[in-house]
Parts: sequence; C-alpha cells; structure tokens
Amino acid sequence: MLPTEIIRAKRDGRPLAPEQIQALVDGFTRGLIPDYQMAAFCMAVFFRGLTEEETGALTEAMLRSGDVLDLSDIPGVKVDKHSTGGVGDKVSLALAPIAAACGVVVPMISGRGLGHTGGTLDKLESIPGFQIGLGEGRFREVLAATGACLIGQTERLAPADRRLYALRDVTATVESIPLIASSIMSKKLAEGIDGLVLDVKVGSGAFMKRAEDAERLARVLCDIGRGMGKRVVALLTGMDQPLGAAVGNALEVKEAVELLRGRGPIDLLEVTLELAAEMVLLAGRAESLEDARCMAGETIDDGRAFSKLCQIVAAQGGEPEALVDYALLPQARGTFEVRARAEGFVQAIDAEAIGLAAVALGAGRVRVEDAVDHGVGLVVHRKVGDRVEAGEPLCTLHWGARGAEHPDAVAERVQRAYQIGEHALPAEPLFLGRIG
Amino acid sequence: MLPTEIIRAKRDGRPLAPEQIQALVDGFTRGLIPDYQMAAFCMAVFFRGLTEEETGALTEAMLRSGDVLDLSDIPGVKVDKHSTGGVGDKVSLALAPIAAACGVVVPMISGRGLGHTGGTLDKLESIPGFQIGLGEGRFREVLAATGACLIGQTERLAPADRRLYALRDVTATVESIPLIASSIMSKKLAEGIDGLVLDVKVGSGAFMKRAEDAERLARVLCDIGRGMGKRVVALLTGMDQPLGAAVGNALEVKEAVELLRGRGPIDLLEVTLELAAEMVLLAGRAESLEDARCMAGETIDDGRAFSKLCQIVAAQGGEPEALVDYALLPQARGTFEVRARAEGFVQAIDAEAIGLAAVALGAGRVRVEDAVDHGVGLVVHRKVGDRVEAGEPLCTLHWGARGAEHPDAVAERVQRAYQIGEHALPAEPLFLGRIG
Repeated sequence: MLPTEIIRAKRDGRPLAPEQIQALVDGFTRGLIPDYQMAAFCMAVFFRGLTEEETGALTEAMLRSGDVLDLSDIPGVKVDKHSTGGVGDKVSLALAPIAAACGVVVPMISGRGLGHTGGTLDKLESIPGFQIGLGEGRFREVLAATGACLIGQTERLAPADRRLYALRDVTATVESIPLIASSIMSKKLAEGIDGLVLDVKVGSGAFMKRAEDAERLARVLCDIGRGMGKRVVALLTGMDQPLGAAVGNALEVKEAVELLRGRGPIDLLEVTLELAAEMVLLAGRAESLEDARCMAGETIDDGRAFSKLCQIVAAQGGEPEALVDYALLPQARGTFEVRARAEGFVQAIDAEAIGLAAVALGAGRVRVEDAVDHGVGLVVHRKVGDRVEAGEPLCTLHWGARGAEHPDAVAERVQRAYQIGEHALPAEPLFLGRIG
Repeated sequence: MLPTEIIRAKRDGRPLAPEQIQALVDGFTRGLIPDYQMAAFCMAVFFRGLTEEETGALTEAMLRSGDVLDLSDIPGVKVDKHSTGGVGDKVSLALAPIAAACGVVVPMISGRGLGHTGGTLDKLESIPGFQIGLGEGRFREVLAATGACLIGQTERLAPADRRLYALRDVTATVESIPLIASSIMSKKLAEGIDGLVLDVKVGSGAFMKRAEDAERLARVLCDIGRGMGKRVVALLTGMDQPLGAAVGNALEVKEAVELLRGRGPIDLLEVTLELAAEMVLLAGRAESLEDARCMAGETIDDGRAFSKLCQIVAAQGGEPEALVDYALLPQARGTFEVRARAEGFVQAIDAEAIGLAAVALGAGRVRVEDAVDHGVGLVVHRKVGDRVEAGEPLCTLHWGARGAEHPDAVAERVQRAYQIGEHALPAEPLFLGRIG
C-alpha cells in the first residue's frame, strides 16, 4: 500500500494493519516517506485517533527505529518513572534515590524543560559538574554501582520518535492522545525497563487540563506498556498549583534535597512517596503498597535516600558538596518579594501562569534552542487554602538572567496568577486516580 | 500568527481571517512555509471545512499568486465552461465553436486526462498540428480573430494552485469540496473571464458519485465566482454511463465533429446545447434560455459551428482537413468487438470502469507523466435501457498502444462494467439540477 493510501485509510476511519504502520515509520525514519506525508498522517490521526492495536504498532515501530537497551546483565528489577510534566515537579530528583535505596534499579532517561513545564535534565545540570550525557558503558556502570542513573535521551534511542515529535511540534499535531502516548512509551521502553510508574498530571499547570483526558491518556499508556509485557501503573496527580514551593532549576534541586533531609513541602513529599511506593511494589521489593510506602519513608528518615543521591551525583561527575552547602549551587543576582495587595484566602493559583513567570525570569525555554539560567526562578509562599494579609509575601522572585523580563513585569504575572478571595476554598485533591 | 497557530486554529474549528489565509498561501508559494505545514493544514481543512469567506480568500490568494489575464481590450463578453470531469466528455470540443458562433468570446484553458477521466488537451492534440501551448500574445490574437481559443494552463497562471494540488495528490487531501472548488476557480478566474458555466458531473464516472455532494460543490463554486463579481451558473449532469459513445482522444474528436455536422449522439447533443445556451445567456447574446437554446441549435443546423471549429483549428496550427477526412486522425492498430454473452436489457454501465478500460488500452494516464496514444480507445454501442441479443456487439475496442493491456483483458473489464438483466430499467436523468 502506498503512503497516500495509508493516509487515506486513516483519514476515512479504516483501521491500519501493524505492518502498514511499521512501513510508514520505517520509511519516515529512512527518509523515504517525506515529512509532508507524515504531517498529513498525524493530522488524520488527530481527528480519527488510533485503535489500541495501531497505537501499539506505532510505539513498537518507533521503539525499534533505534537501539533498545538490554540491562538484563544488571541484577534487580528495573523500574523508571515518567511524569507528563508540570510546574515545580522536581519529584524525580528525590524519587530516584529513594527507590534505589529501597533496592529498585532505576535507569532514568529524562528530558529538558519546554514552555511552562520544567525538565529534570535542566535541574540536574544546576548541580556543579553533573554529567547528563554519559555513554552507554558508563550509564551501565553507574546503574550497577549505585542503583540509579539519570541521563538525557541519546541519538540512538527511538530516533523515529525524535523526528516525528519535531514534525508534530510545527504542524499542530502534538495534542493527540495516541501520538503522545506512543511517543512517551517508545522512549521509555527503549530504556530496557521491566516496569514503569506514570505520573499523569492534571490541572492548570499540566498538559491535560481535564481529569477525563488525563485518565484516557493514562489508560492508553498502560495498555501500550502491558501490550509489550511490562508492568505499568499510572497515578493521576493534581497540578492545579505548583508542586512544592520552588520553580526553577537550582531552587528545585535545593527543595528536593530538603525533602530528602526531612524538610520538604508536604504535597511534594506525598506525591514522591506514593510514586516511590508504586516503584517498590512493581519491583517486587515489598508485599503491599502500605509496606512499600513505609520502606520509602524510612529511607528519608534514616538518611539513606540522601546518601544515595550524593552517591549518584558523585558517580555522574557532580559535586555532592553542593547538596549540603547550597551556596555552591547557581545563584540568582537578586530577589524580589511579590506581596499580596489585599487580605483573604488563596482560592486558586494558575500553575501554567506561574510556570511561564519562571520562564520569563530565564528559568525555562520558549523555544528548544533557548538557554536556561539555572539560578533564577521563584518560590511560592502561599498555596491554595492559605490565609494571607495585605502586604505579606506571596512569592519570592529570584531574578538576574541575561535578557529576561523585568522583575516588576514578572511580579505582575504572579499577581494575576493568584486568585485571592474572601472565603477559603479547598485545594483540589492531590491524588485523582490510579490505573494499574 | 505563526503557521503552526494557523493550522491549530483550523484544526480546532476556529475561523481564519482572510489575511491569515493570504499569508499561508504567499508563504507557501515563496517557499517560506514548508510542504509539511501545508499538508497538515490541508488535512485539517479536510476535516473542518472552510467557511465561504475562507474559501473565497483561499481562491483569491491562489489566483493572485500568478498572472491574471486582462482580456478587456478584446470586445465581447468572455465566458468559459468548466467540467468536473467524466468519461466520454468531449463537450468542450463542440461547445467552444457553438458558443463562439453565437457571439460569445470563449477563452478556454483546459487540462489533461488523469485516471478514468479524459482531458480536453489530449483530445485536441489528436488533431494533427494543433498547438495547445500558445503564448499569451497568440492566445489573444486567436481569441480576437475567431472568438475562441483552447490552450493548456501556463506556468504563470495560479502557480500556488499547481503546487498545492501536487501536494494534495500525495497527502490524501484531494477530496475536500472547498479545496476542490478553490483550485478550479483560482485557475478559471485567472483567465480574465466575465462569466463561467460549470458542468458538475454526478455518477459512477464522475468525481462526485452522489448528487448531494455535487450540489454542495456546485454551490461553493458559484459562491466563489459571485464573490469575485463573476456571472456563474452550474448544471448538474449525469455521468452514470459514458457521455455519447466514444471514449479515447481521436475517437472523441470524431464524435464531436459528427455532432457539429448534425450526426451526434442525443445525450451528448442535449448536454452540449444546454451548456451552450447557458453561455449564450450569460454573455447577454439572448433574452431567454429558450432563445439561447435555439440559437445554439441553429449554429449546428446551418454549419456555422462546424466552420467555426475548422477556423479555430486552423488558427491554432491544426489541419482542418482531419475534421473532414477522419483517416488523417491518429488510428488504432486494430479493433476488437466485445459481444454480449446473454440477451437482455442494459441496466447499468459502470462509467468509471469504462474509463479505466480506455486507460488500459493506452488512451489515458495512470500517472501524470504517462504518455497517451491518441488513436486508441473504445466506442460503446449499447447504453442503459437498450435491448441486446446474445452475441451482439456491446462495444468496439480500438487497440494497439505500446505497453497497453491485451484487448482480451480489456474486453473482460468492459464485460464487468455492463450490467445486463431481464428487465428494462430507466437510465438516470441527464439533468439533475441547475444552480444559477
């Protein structure tokens, strides 16, 4: 079947055979099928969707377009976590050492921030010396020695996905659940994992604003993973306000370290422990989720998780001293307090607007090629449900990146992101569902 | 607005401003907007459609992408006819001289055949010496001298449409009424016409198989033309069986000439006269459609239409002798009778299958770059409603093109295209509607 006929079949809602999808992805990766045909195909998928079988075939074709790591020579069950992205989501930094301290092997391949959401790689790079670009040999060594290794995607993992994602980005075909799901899963399954815990974020700061969309995505992700024989669990977690308090790379590293030292914000702690417990359970290191939660919590209480993070950082070339003496982390040039203009209760915080305020300070990227200032960002002091008096600080801006927006303008963004009213409204729940 | 945002807006069903569509077409024509973005846009249009305003803006943008002829220095009202394409549709060959003989100025820019439908240019080129590639100067001279000139599309008329059509062809985005309509009208309006008569074909041999689709297309075509201040009328005509008897280039020329000499098949005569009458009325050469029909018929009866065709052919470098002595037209190498296997009534003829049988004989093209043998084709002897005895000829194949299918195999195609049964079924009506 010609590519045009495959596009037409999808356009008209006729199901495609796995071999047709395979041929499309292969042809695209090898440059035989041009971008314009793939763009038309993606738009047809946007409108028509993909069946479970088609989604599986697309994922597998992208997965097989490059190397698939085989980590079977490293003892232990390999489990990774993937978040669909949020504001202040520094979970991975604390989660990887907690899970590793519980005996889970965590081969974690992360991405960079784009738009209002941050990325784990940028956060890691704010630790002086930390290398995210290890070769496969060193990746295996660190993983075997410490139980966790956090790196960036290599050229050789799922190259079809990288090409396809770049095309979708400029053809308005990103927002398609089967395309999103196959993109995520093709990368994750190339890591050579046995299991995967998904953190599907829901709310104003998430890609999925509505719980039903997030749930659909979560189900498709789980179906793909299980179709390939992996253990997969998805949690739907709230992203209606920033997670924790810090938004910005070094600021988030500091907050994650504080968490591991027993001083983390409660919402961040809850989400991290819940995801850690799922990883521990998937890896067969505990009998029940309850036991797994206790195990995970103990690694914080007795300092093993923090030691594990120091060990991982050292193994990846970073300076663990910076995790003790925060002055060694990149710093902002100055701070600026955003103060409440009136008294009342914080009723809502537009998390996407907060994320974009951090980007405006230079902490994130508008375009893929933008540079990031690791020292800047913001720290929110009041969250939904909190009482605030007029003049009290809502948020501290850490400013000073070259070419960034003026702190006054960013402060105005933060003011607009906060909804303060007379009555206390309950915060949205942190846990909205579990699919597993 | 970035191209991606324009695509997204269309994808999400939001209306586009004329300037946005203009920017898209301009950018595409100038190579600033890549094919993949235009392909995604076309697929979004396939699903979401275009408003009347958007369709007008797209047509105008494509029209303005190249030269627009100004024929105002040639006296008379300029009216062209466009057919959406069918099998055995040789109407233009007879219509142009009839209308010109009635005083209408007919600047006709035609296309080539592709797939099961034939093209006027291929038919004209079967007349020895006939030039379809005149420059603009000579085009004007012939038009002024004879009242009609029939040429091919030049590189300079609506280049955006040519590029866009090529892209749609390979991205399964041809079948979209607003895209079809804007493609047709951008080319036709670039001809410098005052009015246009549309022959929208409906049925098994037409692009539009269903009357409601044809009517929608006709309405969109009329709306575009009127939006640009042109007089436009559309007739919906039947294409459930071949029009007339001949299918193939020289065979169709011969049939069109026979029509002008008073010996044409009745269905072809009716369609030709009706379209001619509409052109005469649009051009203001008659008071009523009834008068216009009589005027058109008289040009056949008194030989003026045939003389006019000879005059046009001579002016365009062709040999008018071939219109009298058909042996001067390209000939097939041999003929082959396809005979009825059983007695009965012809209940239906799959016109598309007949068109493809002619292509298989070498009369048409599967791909744009294919060569055509002007002498080959077929002539049907029995049409819907006709009685046939076993062994009587249904159709004569004129075969002999290099690399063509064996006549036996083509005969089998013809047999399958004919549905012969016990009872006489009425033929579908020839006229299905008029929008004007």
